[in-house]
Amino acid sequence: MLNSKTTALRTGAAFLCMLVITACMVIEGDRHHFETEEEENENWYHNISRDSWAWQGADPEVIERVLARIASSKNARRDPNLLDSVKDYGPGHWVFEWETAGDQVLDFARKAEQTGETARARKLFFEASSYYTTASYPHLKNDALAMRALNKARLSYQAGGRLLEVPLQTVRIRHGQHAFNAYLHLPKGPGPHPLVVQSMGSDVVKEQALGVFSRHLAPRGIAMLSIDMPGIGESGAFPLTASSDILHVAAVRAMRRHPSVDGDRIAVMGASFGGHPAARILFRKELSLAGSVSICGPLDSAFLMEEDDYAKLPEMTLDAVKDRLGFSKEVAWEQFSERFRSFSLAQQGIYGQSAETPLLVVTTHADPVAPLSDLKPLVQAARNSHTVILYEQGHCPDKDVRYAVAADWLTDLFSRL
Amino acid sequence: MLNSKTTALRTGAAFLCMLVITACMVIEGDRHHFETEEEENENWYHNISRDSWAWQGADPEVIERVLARIASSKNARRDPNLLDSVKDYGPGHWVFEWETAGDQVLDFARKAEQTGETARARKLFFEASSYYTTASYPHLKNDALAMRALNKARLSYQAGGRLLEVPLQTVRIRHGQHAFNAYLHLPKGPGPHPLVVQSMGSDVVKEQALGVFSRHLAPRGIAMLSIDMPGIGESGAFPLTASSDILHVAAVRAMRRHPSVDGDRIAVMGASFGGHPAARILFRKELSLAGSVSICGPLDSAFLMEEDDYAKLPEMTLDAVKDRLGFSKEVAWEQFSERFRSFSLAQQGIYGQSAETPLLVVTTHADPVAPLSDLKPLVQAARNSHTVILYEQGHCPDKDVRYAVAADWLTDLFSRL
Repeated sequence: MLNSKTTALRTGAAFLCMLVITACMVIEGDRHHFETEEEENENWYHNISRDSWAWQGADPEVIERVLARIASSKNARRDPNLLDSVKDYGPGHWVFEWETAGDQVLDFARKAEQTGETARARKLFFEASSYYTTASYPHLKNDALAMRALNKARLSYQAGGRLLEVPLQTVRIRHGQHAFNAYLHLPKGPGPHPLVVQSMGSDVVKEQALGVFSRHLAPRGIAMLSIDMPGIGESGAFPLTASSDILHVAAVRAMRRHPSVDGDRIAVMGASFGGHPAARILFRKELSLAGSVSICGPLDSAFLMEEDDYAKLPEMTLDAVKDRLGFSKEVAWEQFSERFRSFSLAQQGIYGQSAETPLLVVTTHADPVAPLSDLKPLVQAARNSHTVILYEQGHCPDKDVRYAVAADWLTDLFSRL
Repeated sequence: MLNSKTTALRTGAAFLCMLVITACMVIEGDRHHFETEEEENENWYHNISRDSWAWQGADPEVIERVLARIASSKNARRDPNLLDSVKDYGPGHWVFEWETAGDQVLDFARKAEQTGETARARKLFFEASSYYTTASYPHLKNDALAMRALNKARLSYQAGGRLLEVPLQTVRIRHGQHAFNAYLHLPKGPGPHPLVVQSMGSDVVKEQALGVFSRHLAPRGIAMLSIDMPGIGESGAFPLTASSDILHVAAVRAMRRHPSVDGDRIAVMGASFGGHPAARILFRKELSLAGSVSICGPLDSAFLMEEDDYAKLPEMTLDAVKDRLGFSKEVAWEQFSERFRSFSLAQQGIYGQSAETPLLVVTTHADPVAPLSDLKPLVQAARNSHTVILYEQGHCPDKDVRYAVAADWLTDLFSRL
């Protein structure tokens, strides 16, 4: 119908950009709730991510109840401007309130399991796990309360995982002097199955990725190994360094020997900081990966920021990144920035090589952390790449959209092998 | 990682738009092949859509060979500036060359079928069908040669369909004084299956949609009924009017009685002009549709164009639209525009109602036919809507991306019913 592709393109870049301006103003009007969310976030240390939490299995009513309990607490706060900075573990304290929500749902889950209501028990175990991961968020290793909550998240996740149609397997993978645990989710059927090794952002743990498998990969018969990035969760013993993909490499090698996995059909997928190793691993020719999906990953410019930009970053974001890198909160800018700069794939000289491994990039048009300009050298070096750009505000595309696109791309990729 | 959503949003609309400008200039550089394609299209009456043809099953080498034969023909042309305007049916003639390519592959397909190579035969039948639909494109009803090629496309498609794991069913559906044929593709398994009634643009026929089913719907266990829009193909007896969704309504009603279809889980999906009925049908409360997916559909502004814009549209686009509306090539602007204006959903007063039926919109950020501004009244009237915008040039998002997103949305929708 009215295929005016030609007509529109004839007018060239200038016209296109004018159109974009008009469009984004229209959209601005439609998305007023973003601003409300933003204003709300100013009063919190943590990012208030209702959509992500609900996607992970949390009950929206519980979310509101817990946030209200924290916000209305009369107890002393570390920072009077931050609602979620109640100092003492107890009512109003971030970890306490989310952990309590988790404990309550865990109790229901156990009762449901005892009475043989398997589907209900499974759902509740994963729901409890979601409250525990929010309790431990951003998962700082020196926060004993958070670490205890994160351990509860693992136990709940594993309890839910035992009740899946194909029970969850916890796999222990050795790398160097240490080992880390990973979750292997298998689809139905005899196998061996194609596999995706997946990891997420620098403040997201492997217990938060079930939806990637259950909603998107399992229906296509693709297995998922969910791992923690170096420096977080059960990969906390490994500091996050410029070689961000070392654990992914170890995971791919380990999975090649797994009887339920088709060793010729293993891909890697990562979102946010997880998009960095997913891009980096593309250039490890000896690994013979089937493909990689890099979603809104910071590749270069985010690591090359100046001290001014650094000072403007939210406190929690910085706390999380410092923790992943093995720095204390008080690390000096010079020390931090030197290490941080080393993550730039361009500065690492990675793009001097070319890669034949198929690459899918999924991102948004104006991501503050993963700007489109960072993609240019990557897609030039990756000879077989496909880029999908969502017209969406903020950092990272909508989860269901990005994993739908990724899962179909992977299905097609694996069907050719 | 570096969740700067807050930071970026704080800067507001102006900053966002600046980012967009930068981004689209960068992208311009990457997409230089678009311009090449555009320049090439100036020399052709037909849109040269290599990607779409290949997606449909055509062999890229055959595409180039046929285009070269047409372009290098020494025979007399209707318009010396249009390579594909050779007048006489024979070497160099658009229909002749594509039809010949189809005949050759059809011959291979039959031989493969005779020797029991079912998978190869199936692939070749669909490949032949793709050359025949390109031969008949844009499927003008008064072009006897095109109509003969389109009939061959149907026969090849049906021959391929008989060899599918679940054989294709051709369903005859009555509406008013006439009837139309539709293709029912069922997924594996006992059923009854959820179903999507799908249609495409004003110059695309139901034989061109197999990939929607085989690549995206079948793996999720969703059936597809592929229909021709009014005014095209086997729905040619019905003129395309402002009530663009009449055949979709008839199809939904007919499918409710089909033993392999779950009558409570029927949705509609349409792309390009097919996005118009997919939006319109949302407001037919009595139909109790499960949901609708409207992809880059013209809703309003495209129908309200002025004579100047009309004069700038490519000849083939206009020929196709006039044919669908039942007009001759020579129809006067006044007569055409009066009818065309009646398609505007805003002018039809449709948005005075509200709709509860779930709606998914998938579109691009700067579609010349489906601008984002057209969406505003639609998503305001549709109380349960979700919009996914791809950052992509031209009319309509990449097929595999849009159907991946749509299929996962439908899977989720059907799982709740």
